[in-house]
Amino acid sequence: MPAQAVLEVLAEYGSRIDSLMEQYLLRHADPEFAEAVLYPVRAGGKRVRPALAILSCMASGGREEQAYPAAIAVELVHNYSLILDDIIDHSELRRGKPTLWKKYGLSTAILVAVHYRETISEVLNDSPDPKLFHEVVARAVKLLVDGERLDILFEQAGREDEPYVVQHRRRVVSLDDYIRMIERKTAALIQAACELGALSAGAPQAHVQALSEYGYNLGIAFQVGDDIIDIFGEEEKTGKKVGGDIYEHKLGNVVLLLAMEELGVALAEVLAKSEVTPEDAARVIDLVKRTSARQRAEELRNRYVERALTALDRLPESRYKDLLRKLAIFIKEREF
Amino acid sequence: MPAQAVLEVLAEYGSRIDSLMEQYLLRHADPEFAEAVLYPVRAGGKRVRPALAILSCMASGGREEQAYPAAIAVELVHNYSLILDDIIDHSELRRGKPTLWKKYGLSTAILVAVHYRETISEVLNDSPDPKLFHEVVARAVKLLVDGERLDILFEQAGREDEPYVVQHRRRVVSLDDYIRMIERKTAALIQAACELGALSAGAPQAHVQALSEYGYNLGIAFQVGDDIIDIFGEEEKTGKKVGGDIYEHKLGNVVLLLAMEELGVALAEVLAKSEVTPEDAARVIDLVKRTSARQRAEELRNRYVERALTALDRLPESRYKDLLRKLAIFIKEREF
Repeated sequence: MPAQAVLEVLAEYGSRIDSLMEQYLLRHADPEFAEAVLYPVRAGGKRVRPALAILSCMASGGREEQAYPAAIAVELVHNYSLILDDIIDHSELRRGKPTLWKKYGLSTAILVAVHYRETISEVLNDSPDPKLFHEVVARAVKLLVDGERLDILFEQAGREDEPYVVQHRRRVVSLDDYIRMIERKTAALIQAACELGALSAGAPQAHVQALSEYGYNLGIAFQVGDDIIDIFGEEEKTGKKVGGDIYEHKLGNVVLLLAMEELGVALAEVLAKSEVTPEDAARVIDLVKRTSARQRAEELRNRYVERALTALDRLPESRYKDLLRKLAIFIKEREF
Repeated sequence: MPAQAVLEVLAEYGSRIDSLMEQYLLRHADPEFAEAVLYPVRAGGKRVRPALAILSCMASGGREEQAYPAAIAVELVHNYSLILDDIIDHSELRRGKPTLWKKYGLSTAILVAVHYRETISEVLNDSPDPKLFHEVVARAVKLLVDGERLDILFEQAGREDEPYVVQHRRRVVSLDDYIRMIERKTAALIQAACELGALSAGAPQAHVQALSEYGYNLGIAFQVGDDIIDIFGEEEKTGKKVGGDIYEHKLGNVVLLLAMEELGVALAEVLAKSEVTPEDAARVIDLVKRTSARQRAEELRNRYVERALTALDRLPESRYKDLLRKLAIFIKEREF
């Protein structure tokens, strides 16, 4: 299987929850509210998190269906966070379509988000161990909140109308700060997906732990890879504007963070401009290319991929474990 | 005890959860986030819902402490909904202080709201029956969402930038529509407070049901009373601008709704103005005073108070039941 084909297999596993997920979302939803409620999950998405929950369950000897509550819950958490992130970042497009708030209005988007969170609670009640599953999800979402908070505080301009951000904004961000931010913003939920998948199978503690570590390291590697693609990707492949994080003043992109060590004020000045122009972004990318930032970021990403693979070694061989391994390897190669 | 003194007794019961509630809120909260997280619960509030949970527990033969998880959960749900309502309504003041989003910024307010919801989940996990308590809360919050959605759709102007509202706005609202809206927006959570309080005591099903009905009817009566005060209250007593619902174009105020039957277009025109002036509001109040709306609204409120009292009859006598009875009677008399 070529590395990229793993994505298609994953999408196939992930898509198996779609119909059940929609049923949960429509529970206690007025028919007049249904269209807005279904919009986020119908707008696309690769369903990576539910696929991870399902594969983690099966790699632990469980049956696919046992993982459905976990899989649906993590996919809904992901969508819940995207609905709110798009409000927070004033984003008008996602996956080439209007974001929920842009399409229906702010009030509706907030109400849909709250409805998602209650649906998550209902799904978790149908899991094999509701109390434990509620605890894992609550912890992951609180980490998500803190990761998003830090990501915002790492922005070097904007949000002048937000007193908390203006007061607490970070002018210096270390690599440790960055890891701390992305382990919350990104890795915590991917880790929870794997952990809940394993728990759904009733896996022994050692296997739950192995998959939890796999998920954590995969999540970090994934976000570092995402940051690299944001700066060096090709618009035709990614479907996203190159350098989006530069326009958003993000020192919380690892490439920009590492380049800052070599470029200093020349980069800092651009990120701190109240309005970043396409010329600014192009100039930054040019400057960054002359540093070792890309190479160091790729090494960092690959180190976490290796850790994810090492964690997997503690599981018995199976075709599901093999898919999890292939996914980790794919992260080293992906260009979109 | 004069009717009003019941409020002080209730506030005393309600305040007993404050310190434990803050401990829960600070769980997994970064110290740098703590001030914003505590702001909503420290900004005041009468703690009616936790008092209802505690009294319902004690009226069912339980100990006060047994009700703490239920009491904290419903108070946090209440605050969670206020944080988001203030964003949705662009409200800058609550209880005489800046609202959370106004004080810290929109991103921070959204992140605090999400943190509240996860704290609710953590608290419910410490209840006597987590799965059941999660279910009751998820149901109540989904109803809250739908009540808020309807309340917005009953507005006669504004939100021109919100396509969902513009498309689904109601031009005609019946009394049945109104009851359907407030049983979701207001009664569902008060009902859940009483029900969860009784469940915390391990009360027999008949008592849980009686307290659930008490809470539902109390909640409806409370909201009708609130609507009456909004139009006819005195600013010195309420601390709120008289006729606030007129400025907000709300046909979802029962007094305005009932007055509409007698006034028709004269009232409809003002509510549909894009900007309601103080002169408009004064004129509407004057017009409404010449109708039977106030009297009919008071009769409606009192009918629900009677139903709440009837539900209480099914509980054994106790001083806690007596307090619940006094609270219902107080709703007939309150002026703020």
